[in-house]
Amino acid sequence: MKVYLPDESVLEVSDNAKVLDVALQISEGLARNAVAGKVNGVAVDLSHPVSEGDKVAILTLRDEEGLDVYRHTCSHVLAQAVKTIYPTCNLAIGPTTATGFYYDIDFKTPITLEDLSKIEEEMKKIIKSDLPIERFTLPRAEAIKLMKKYSEPYKVQLIEDLPEGEEISFYKQGAFTDLCRGPHLPSTGKIKAFKLTALNGSYWRGDSKNKMLARIYGTAFEKKSQLDEYLEKLEQAKLRDHNKLGRELGYFTTVDTLGQGLPVLLEKGSKTIQVLQRFVEDEEMKRGYILTKTPLMAKSDFYKISGHWDHYKEGMFVIGDEDKDKEVFALRPMTCPFQFQVYLNKPRSYRDLPMRLGETSTLFRNEDSGEMHGLIRVRQFTISEGHLACTPEQLEGEFKGCVDLMLYMMKAIGLDKDISYRFSKWDKNNKEKYIGSEEEWEGVQAKMKDILDNLGIDYTEADGEAAFYGPKLDVQIKNVYGKEDTLVTIQIDFQLAKRFEMVYTDSDGEKKYPYVIHRTSLGCYERTLALVLEKYAGALPLWMAPVQATILSMTDRSEEYCRKLWGELLEEGIRPSLDLRSEKMGRKIRDAQLDKVPYMLIVGDKEIETGTVSVRDRKLGDIGVMSVEDFIKRVKSEVKSLKLD
Amino acid sequence: MKVYLPDESVLEVSDNAKVLDVALQISEGLARNAVAGKVNGVAVDLSHPVSEGDKVAILTLRDEEGLDVYRHTCSHVLAQAVKTIYPTCNLAIGPTTATGFYYDIDFKTPITLEDLSKIEEEMKKIIKSDLPIERFTLPRAEAIKLMKKYSEPYKVQLIEDLPEGEEISFYKQGAFTDLCRGPHLPSTGKIKAFKLTALNGSYWRGDSKNKMLARIYGTAFEKKSQLDEYLEKLEQAKLRDHNKLGRELGYFTTVDTLGQGLPVLLEKGSKTIQVLQRFVEDEEMKRGYILTKTPLMAKSDFYKISGHWDHYKEGMFVIGDEDKDKEVFALRPMTCPFQFQVYLNKPRSYRDLPMRLGETSTLFRNEDSGEMHGLIRVRQFTISEGHLACTPEQLEGEFKGCVDLMLYMMKAIGLDKDISYRFSKWDKNNKEKYIGSEEEWEGVQAKMKDILDNLGIDYTEADGEAAFYGPKLDVQIKNVYGKEDTLVTIQIDFQLAKRFEMVYTDSDGEKKYPYVIHRTSLGCYERTLALVLEKYAGALPLWMAPVQATILSMTDRSEEYCRKLWGELLEEGIRPSLDLRSEKMGRKIRDAQLDKVPYMLIVGDKEIETGTVSVRDRKLGDIGVMSVEDFIKRVKSEVKSLKLD
Repeated sequence: MKVYLPDESVLEVSDNAKVLDVALQISEGLARNAVAGKVNGVAVDLSHPVSEGDKVAILTLRDEEGLDVYRHTCSHVLAQAVKTIYPTCNLAIGPTTATGFYYDIDFKTPITLEDLSKIEEEMKKIIKSDLPIERFTLPRAEAIKLMKKYSEPYKVQLIEDLPEGEEISFYKQGAFTDLCRGPHLPSTGKIKAFKLTALNGSYWRGDSKNKMLARIYGTAFEKKSQLDEYLEKLEQAKLRDHNKLGRELGYFTTVDTLGQGLPVLLEKGSKTIQVLQRFVEDEEMKRGYILTKTPLMAKSDFYKISGHWDHYKEGMFVIGDEDKDKEVFALRPMTCPFQFQVYLNKPRSYRDLPMRLGETSTLFRNEDSGEMHGLIRVRQFTISEGHLACTPEQLEGEFKGCVDLMLYMMKAIGLDKDISYRFSKWDKNNKEKYIGSEEEWEGVQAKMKDILDNLGIDYTEADGEAAFYGPKLDVQIKNVYGKEDTLVTIQIDFQLAKRFEMVYTDSDGEKKYPYVIHRTSLGCYERTLALVLEKYAGALPLWMAPVQATILSMTDRSEEYCRKLWGELLEEGIRPSLDLRSEKMGRKIRDAQLDKVPYMLIVGDKEIETGTVSVRDRKLGDIGVMSVEDFIKRVKSEVKSLKLD
Repeated sequence: MKVYLPDESVLEVSDNAKVLDVALQISEGLARNAVAGKVNGVAVDLSHPVSEGDKVAILTLRDEEGLDVYRHTCSHVLAQAVKTIYPTCNLAIGPTTATGFYYDIDFKTPITLEDLSKIEEEMKKIIKSDLPIERFTLPRAEAIKLMKKYSEPYKVQLIEDLPEGEEISFYKQGAFTDLCRGPHLPSTGKIKAFKLTALNGSYWRGDSKNKMLARIYGTAFEKKSQLDEYLEKLEQAKLRDHNKLGRELGYFTTVDTLGQGLPVLLEKGSKTIQVLQRFVEDEEMKRGYILTKTPLMAKSDFYKISGHWDHYKEGMFVIGDEDKDKEVFALRPMTCPFQFQVYLNKPRSYRDLPMRLGETSTLFRNEDSGEMHGLIRVRQFTISEGHLACTPEQLEGEFKGCVDLMLYMMKAIGLDKDISYRFSKWDKNNKEKYIGSEEEWEGVQAKMKDILDNLGIDYTEADGEAAFYGPKLDVQIKNVYGKEDTLVTIQIDFQLAKRFEMVYTDSDGEKKYPYVIHRTSLGCYERTLALVLEKYAGALPLWMAPVQATILSMTDRSEEYCRKLWGELLEEGIRPSLDLRSEKMGRKIRDAQLDKVPYMLIVGDKEIETGTVSVRDRKLGDIGVMSVEDFIKRVKSEVKSLKLD
């Protein structure tokens, strides 16, 4: 029979050929490197049979999907090793990630980091045994019976939740069998280089109402050299990790009894966010924005109008119970309907448009505890939020203005080279997630595509990532570990104005609905702070630095002068700190250096006499003696120019 | 028998004498003016019998308590009139207020403001009839029976809720009988001057879960001239009322579907609060404060440590249900336990003390809908919050520093002459409301009294007004209607450090608990804004004004120059607005004047030619032509000096 290869060429294979046979027929080398295949676009085992007319591709470790299969098998080897050492534990799920794999496991007695090397040893044995990996399927009742026999209650639940008619497959390697969709390597011996990297807690199904399981992380590569390189990069990343650095430098902390995803901003974090916030508020004012300050909560009635109650309730913190309480409130997950009230405060005409509203807005999202991460994934955050109402004719210009403002901000903090763009569209196969008709969606998406193309933005498209009321331009950025998140978003909304009866009287006297652009200029302050901490490894550029200059007293005699200088700098809008300890100057400089303060001002008798300061730059070292006035001028000019290094 | 008069003199009266007889025996004039009496400190009717040895005082309308009795009778006359006109309505409660009285009534069909004059006419008839007012008491069962007979379900509920053994008294005038503790005037004819002033909605028992009733407000005075004077003052007050003015001028609005007590700050309100917030944050930094930014919510566990769960839960918005949910959160009603986490972030020594923490903090209090009022009583507000940790030796100095900062702020906004002080102490008869022992409370209160006396502060004392963790100095202020509220509070806390294990290592190496001062410098921004709006009748001093200068274009030719000027002023940190409408200059000036903008800058051909502006001051009118540079200098200097008029 005939099968088709990726380059559209035709290959004649025997009638009972499997994917591996196709590989073999192409070349022996390919067969040796093959880890799985793709038949008609679906990833399958090498043992999967092919049929007449199939499109067949061979996956090796050079393909991302091939590497994914390799790592997935690694997670099964991890599970087998764990079950061998801890036969009473229960397995939950073991997927791959962008850089490796993990397995969530319910241990009868908690394990510790030290146990990981023992598990690694057991994994090596399994790999050495080169156990063949075999796939089989079972009807639902028998599948459940099998997992009950193996005392795997989480697997039983997983099977029970599979939709009727879904094929239920298992993978068996030696004495170990796991519920799995696959595909997998043909045998465990194919794994060459792996490492268990971390041990965390994680709730079953990511829901804090459920039991906390142990999550063992690992990674795997084709070659030991690649693994080593990756681990080295990981070590380097850890040094920049805001979740480590931000705590050590005193930017933020978290408190278990207070709650996860609710970071406490310490002096440095509060100060830098204050600086960023004022910077954004002032820049937006120059761009014709109107400042607002709207409530952080509202009655459920309000969210019913906006659509959040129907489309976003799971993500909100709700206060009260509609069955019991007369008034039910919810914390706001978004600012839009609140800020709309400012528009609605007066009848509006085309002369009021475009209306640009800006707010430093705190939002709340009821995310699962398991999802929390430092300042990047939090339950409460403060965002440079804003909404623009405009006529159809103004839409492109206003959208462009939002992109321009966002780029200005990204340049200011030095992240402009690190961002990429995603055009997030609706999912037409999932219409109930959105409001508005197909015609409207396709229309506004086409319009937005035109705008993006006119702007010359280089973007990827993502279906199903739109807001429930309209498509978005997402500005994406990767953290120090390569995990991508959205930093800024600019959205076109053609629905909510109608819901809130936001109209304007046009020049022809008719009442019309404006387009609404939902946008942020700098994103969430917490997340942005995390990303700049990682970008600059904690040494924030002068204009953002929580402390810009630390004053170091040479002896007790300098104390009074140092205090005066502190007040003087503060009065000039500079952020100083004081180190009056009776330590040696070398120690004080070292501490300031570790604290990553941009400037150190050394004050001894000579400086007092001449009204000068001896200045050290954290990068350049000693930059000489200068008058206090000159130092102030230098800092002011560097701050004004938003100097980045 | 003998009774004692207020001047300690003894009066011999007949054995069956009543209060009125005592008055008569003192003087006929006094008896004529008497409205009620006081026997052994308890207010009673004039018909109340006196006993051997009683201390008896006669109340007239010159006494506040006498006026209160007079107004209370007025509320009964109101109720009788309403029942006459609307026999199917149900009466709830009818107390007096500081300036009059009201009655909450459940009407079958809602009444409107226009109906009040009809009710006043009926009240006048009742007064003219001079009905005698008689008191009688009933046992509980009969009291309930009587009120059921009169179809007064709210009164039945009130009786049912009275504690066992409480005397149940009624007052009867003509065909009308009302449940009432009294006392009352001897007859309705004694009322000389009254007026119904307002009609509002109010929930039964102030609880939004209950039915909304109509609240009819009125006031009454001894003489028509006093009533007229009061009504005139009320009219004047209404002109300054922030709840009217603040909406008209575009400072804030409220939205029914969003929720009560959750004001939406419009451009002006947001701007002035931004200015005040930056002013406070910067001033606190100069005074050695550390800025923090802590979460707005926490898990219930956290409030259990702080004591809020046991002592303040009713006042909090709780998310989730402890019986059902694994994690229960609550919005914070206070910042203290959150800000303490900054202290707790590191081990602390005496060298770290005093530690002064400041935060612009949003708080939430679950108050009843009925209590809401404009920007003064709200469910969410933002406060200039702060906590100081200090050694016992530092306590007095730090407390003084807090008072000094508060006074600096009050002077800056011009309210320093309008405040009074209240020393709020615990209630030793209500120990379960507080944490800590009697000895500790008495000790710290004595210490605080010393500090206040040393500061030379003129204060009143109030039992039962302390926080649950310590005594307070409350800075009180009256709104435009004379209603008093707390603007700023400075508290000494000797309990929470223990609860949170906040220790410091003293110079002797021992671990000790610091004193904590809880304080605000400017109070809640919303409330402060309301009070300055009332103080200045909407014409905020230049440094706080949301718009400091409005640029008025003479013709279309000036538009470009005006826009340039707008950007120039903004760049200099001045808050400008633009009026480029094609209106006559007279109209533009009138509008700016109504908008209470401090400066108007008129720009025509001449000004463009010479690079000048023609300046109008909202109070002084035309103040001449000056260069843009000079105008900028003038504004900057007035802002820097915090000029108030």
